[in-house]
Amino acid sequence: MSINSGFKILGIDHLGLAPKDAEQNKNFFKLLSLPLESSETVLEQMVDTTIFDSGSNQSLSKLEILKPTSDQSSIAKFLEKKGSGIHHLALRVDSVDHAIKFLLKNGVKLVTDTAQVGVHHTKVVFVHPRSTGGILIELVEHTR
Amino acid sequence: MSINSGFKILGIDHLGLAPKDAEQNKNFFKLLSLPLESSETVLEQMVDTTIFDSGSNQSLSKLEILKPTSDQSSIAKFLEKKGSGIHHLALRVDSVDHAIKFLLKNGVKLVTDTAQVGVHHTKVVFVHPRSTGGILIELVEHTR
Repeated sequence: MSINSGFKILGIDHLGLAPKDAEQNKNFFKLLSLPLESSETVLEQMVDTTIFDSGSNQSLSKLEILKPTSDQSSIAKFLEKKGSGIHHLALRVDSVDHAIKFLLKNGVKLVTDTAQVGVHHTKVVFVHPRSTGGILIELVEHTR
Repeated sequence: MSINSGFKILGIDHLGLAPKDAEQNKNFFKLLSLPLESSETVLEQMVDTTIFDSGSNQSLSKLEILKPTSDQSSIAKFLEKKGSGIHHLALRVDSVDHAIKFLLKNGVKLVTDTAQVGVHHTKVVFVHPRSTGGILIELVEHTR
């Protein structure tokens, strides 16, 4: 830990998967007997999400399957542009606000310069791929 | 756990990242103060690999940055076809051989039908995206 950064990375919070065939993807994880944790539609993101535990039985490292509910969803655009794949890596932090402050001070481009409200009582921000070598990275803080 | 599958998923072993700009990607993880664990060239895969801990300080959930050393590397082909992104998700299992047996019995297509030798005393197999909805998934067993 850099002593001046003011926040800590706690591990992989989740992976956002964008499979072309979400049903087949879910069936594969069910075949592996991974625990299904929740399913919900996120209206503002225009996606159906299905979350599996990755087998470690921790609060970290979930697998989030994203299925667009509209052609206007960013996941639909990702699928059209890049095809099936892993959409983003979400790292858990202890403070998104401190992370944002630190990253902006260090010239890192963020998708939004303030934290957004995520699902399940989280605060999130996305780091722009232009500052990460091309990988979309989300930072997630659990507020409960 | 299915009682007949004969193997267990233990969590996310690592993510294989294929950033267009590997140096920038590494610098971003260094800025986050993630511990750098190792760097090595894997000749047969034609990639330079750099592994960071994701912050959880566990043996699980590593971030493996893949940089092709040849146009013939599968990572070079991925970058050309899909652009920067997350190449694969590796799940840790307690037995790759049992996993292979179970998956083949269930009609899952594997990239190879026998385990391959991976880095750092591992046995690995890749599940074909055709059987996972489009996501490349590696299964990794640590033999030490």
